[in-house]
Amino acid sequence: MIGEIISIGTEITTGSILNTNTKYLSEKLMELGIDVFYHTSVDDSKDRLSQVLNIALNRADIIITTGGLGPTEDDLTKEVISNTLGLELEMDHMMENNIMAMFKDKNSPMSDNNRKQAKKPKGSSFITNDYGTAPGIYIDLDKKKILMLPGPPHELIPMFENYVYPIIKEDYSILSRSINIHGIGESSLESRLKELPIWNYNNIIVATFAKAGQIEIKIIGKGKIKASVEKQINEIMKIIILEFNEYIFGYDNILIEEVVFNLLHEGKLKLGLAESCTGGLISSKFTRIPGASDVLDRAIVSYSNLSKIEELGVNKEILKQYGAVSSETAFAMAEGLMTRTNLDICLSITGIAGPGGGTIDKPIGLVYLCIMNRNKHKIIKCHFNGNRTTIQNRAATRAFIEIRKFLLE
Amino acid sequence: MIGEIISIGTEITTGSILNTNTKYLSEKLMELGIDVFYHTSVDDSKDRLSQVLNIALNRADIIITTGGLGPTEDDLTKEVISNTLGLELEMDHMMENNIMAMFKDKNSPMSDNNRKQAKKPKGSSFITNDYGTAPGIYIDLDKKKILMLPGPPHELIPMFENYVYPIIKEDYSILSRSINIHGIGESSLESRLKELPIWNYNNIIVATFAKAGQIEIKIIGKGKIKASVEKQINEIMKIIILEFNEYIFGYDNILIEEVVFNLLHEGKLKLGLAESCTGGLISSKFTRIPGASDVLDRAIVSYSNLSKIEELGVNKEILKQYGAVSSETAFAMAEGLMTRTNLDICLSITGIAGPGGGTIDKPIGLVYLCIMNRNKHKIIKCHFNGNRTTIQNRAATRAFIEIRKFLLE
Repeated sequence: MIGEIISIGTEITTGSILNTNTKYLSEKLMELGIDVFYHTSVDDSKDRLSQVLNIALNRADIIITTGGLGPTEDDLTKEVISNTLGLELEMDHMMENNIMAMFKDKNSPMSDNNRKQAKKPKGSSFITNDYGTAPGIYIDLDKKKILMLPGPPHELIPMFENYVYPIIKEDYSILSRSINIHGIGESSLESRLKELPIWNYNNIIVATFAKAGQIEIKIIGKGKIKASVEKQINEIMKIIILEFNEYIFGYDNILIEEVVFNLLHEGKLKLGLAESCTGGLISSKFTRIPGASDVLDRAIVSYSNLSKIEELGVNKEILKQYGAVSSETAFAMAEGLMTRTNLDICLSITGIAGPGGGTIDKPIGLVYLCIMNRNKHKIIKCHFNGNRTTIQNRAATRAFIEIRKFLLE
Repeated sequence: MIGEIISIGTEITTGSILNTNTKYLSEKLMELGIDVFYHTSVDDSKDRLSQVLNIALNRADIIITTGGLGPTEDDLTKEVISNTLGLELEMDHMMENNIMAMFKDKNSPMSDNNRKQAKKPKGSSFITNDYGTAPGIYIDLDKKKILMLPGPPHELIPMFENYVYPIIKEDYSILSRSINIHGIGESSLESRLKELPIWNYNNIIVATFAKAGQIEIKIIGKGKIKASVEKQINEIMKIIILEFNEYIFGYDNILIEEVVFNLLHEGKLKLGLAESCTGGLISSKFTRIPGASDVLDRAIVSYSNLSKIEELGVNKEILKQYGAVSSETAFAMAEGLMTRTNLDICLSITGIAGPGGGTIDKPIGLVYLCIMNRNKHKIIKCHFNGNRTTIQNRAATRAFIEIRKFLLE
C-alpha cells in the first residue's frame, strides 16, 4: 500500500513553521507496513490544494492530510476535499450540539466559523479530537482511504495513536521493536551491523536512525501469523543485543530520562539536581515524565556564583581558585546539595554553553558533571560541539546517561 | 515567480530524519519575493523522482532540489533530472581534477562513484560546496530555473547564502515586518483585522500565524522602490498597532523570554524563579538566551513539599491548610525567595500539570503564578488545557507574559 502525506498551510510553505508532523506520520505508517513515497505541502489555496489532491489520488492508496481544519477562513481542507471528490458537506447535528455545549461551558460566544467545524463530507466519519475543537475526518472510498488530521502536533499525535492507527491497521500482524543505543558512532554501528546474520529473514526490516546523542536500531516484521513474526524478531534482537550489549540503554524508544526515572523509582531513591550551564533543562526534561515528583525532589539552578555559594554552600575559595567551570566546583555543588538535604543521589553540572566565555584552557562546550550518593561520587569531564542550545541539550542527555551508569555500577 | 522545493531521499519519506531544509529555503525564497506554494518529498526512486520533477516543471518557475548529490548508489538526482530534461551528462574536467587533488591531499583512494560527482548536465553550472565534496548544480532553462543543492544542512545553508542567493535575487526590494501578539484568539483577531483599512495596498501581504500561546501578524511588501515599500508597511503597521496595542508584546518574532530579558537587562534587575509544576522549564527557556546569566541569578525547582519548606521557607501550615497548589503557596514561594536573597524580582509558579492529581476544586491545568518585587506583588490564577507537556509549556509562556506586564505596570 502506498501512502502520501499532504501538509496544508501557508505557514508551512512560507517556512513560518517547521513541519514535524510529516516525519512523525511517515515513521508510524512505515511501522504499519505502508510505503510512504511522497510528502507534499501546499499553501492555503483552494485551487492548488484540489490539484495536489488529484495528483495524490492518482499515485497513493492512503492519503493523510494535516492542517486546515480549524475555524478560520484559511481553513479550507474539508471544503476542498469534499468538492474535489464530489461529496456534499453535511451538518452533523450531534457534533454541532457538542461544540455548542463546549462554548456554553466556556461561556464564550460561538461564531458561524465554529459551527462550520460540525460539518463533514457525506459518508465520512468524524475522528475524535481529545485536545482541540477541530475533529478529524475519515473518508473510506472504494480503493482509497483519506484521513484529515488537525495541524497542531499536540492534537494530531494523540488522535493518530488512539483513533487513526486502529483504522488503518490491516489484518496481518505488524510488530516492531527498537534497541536504543548510546556511545558508538552511526557509521561504525552500521558496518558492524552489516556483518551480523540478520539480513536473510523474510518480511523483516532492520534500520538505524540517528537521534540527538543516540541511535535507534529498529526491527520491523510483518506476517499473517503473529507468533512467527515475533519469533523472527526475537532471534534478530538476541543477535544485536549480544553484539552491542555495552552500548544499549533501553528498548522501544524509551527516553533515557525515563530509564533513569524507572531505576530511581524501583530503588526508592530521591534525586536532586544542581544545574548551572544547563539552566534547568535537565530538571525540565525529567519533569515532563508523569509522576516525576515521586523521584525528583528538587533542582537548584545556581546560575550565578553567588547562588552557588548561597544555595549550595560552595566555598568561595574554590570558585576563586578553580573557577565556576571546574571539577572542584562540580564536586562542591553536588556535595553541597547532599549535605543540606536528605536526598539519596545528586547530580551537578557546570560548563560553558557559549556563545561567549570560552578560553583556550576552558573552551566553549567544556562541561563537568558530578554524580554522588552517600557512598561514592564520580566526576566526568566532557566536551560538546555545537551552538548554545545543542551544547545544553547534549549535556542534559549525557547527564542522564551518566546517572544510569552510576546507578548500575 | 512561483517556487517549489523538492526534497529527495528515502530517509525523509520514511521519517528517519526531520526535513529542516525546506523550512529554511521557504523562508529565504519568501524574502526574495518568490511565492513558494509547494513542497514535495520523494524517495530515492528514479521513476518517482522523474514524475515529481515533471509535475513541478508544470507549476513552478524555480525549482530547488535538495539531496541525492553524493557519491553513493542512491544518489541519482543529477542523472534523473538530466534524463527528464533531455540533457546529456558531461564530465567536467576541471572539477574532476579538483576532486582528484582533494583525494590525493587526504591520501584516500578515489572511487568511480566519486568521479561521478564531476559530471554535470550540458549547459549547467556547478555551485561551489565549501563544506562537502558534492557541488551544487544550476540549470537556467528558458523560463525555468532549476537548482540542485546537497542534503546536509551544514553544506546547503552556506551554499545558499553565498552562491544561490545572488543568482536568484532580483532587482526589487522585499521587506517584511512582524507584530507578535498574545491574549486574543486567532479567529477574533482575524475578524477584527478584516475590518481594518489595510487590504487595499498593492504588493503588500498581511497574514497571521498562530504559534504556541501567541499569534504573529506578518506584513510583507515588494516593490521597485525600497522607500515606498517601507512607507506602505509602516502605514499598515501603525493601523494594526493602534487596534491591537494592548495585546502586542514584541515585533519581528522576538521571543517573549527575550522581551523579558531585555526589560530586566535595561533595568539592571536580577531575577529569581521558584518553579514547581513547570519543573525548570521557565528557567531552561530563559537560559537558552545568550547572556542570560546577566539577569537570571537562580531558579529553585521546589518540586516536593519538603523542598518548598527547606529551600524557600514556605510555612508548613500554609501547605497543610491551602495545599501546594494555591495562591497562598504561590505567594509564600515568591516571598521566601525574595526574603532569602537580594534579588529584585521573583516569580513563583505552582500548579497541576497532570495526568493525575486533579480534583473538582483543583482540576488538572490549574496554575498559580506570583510575581513580586520589593514594593508589590501580583497573584495570577490560570487554567490551561492540554496534556502535561502542553500545560507546562503554556504555563511557562504565560509566566513570561505576566513578568513583562508586571514590569511595565
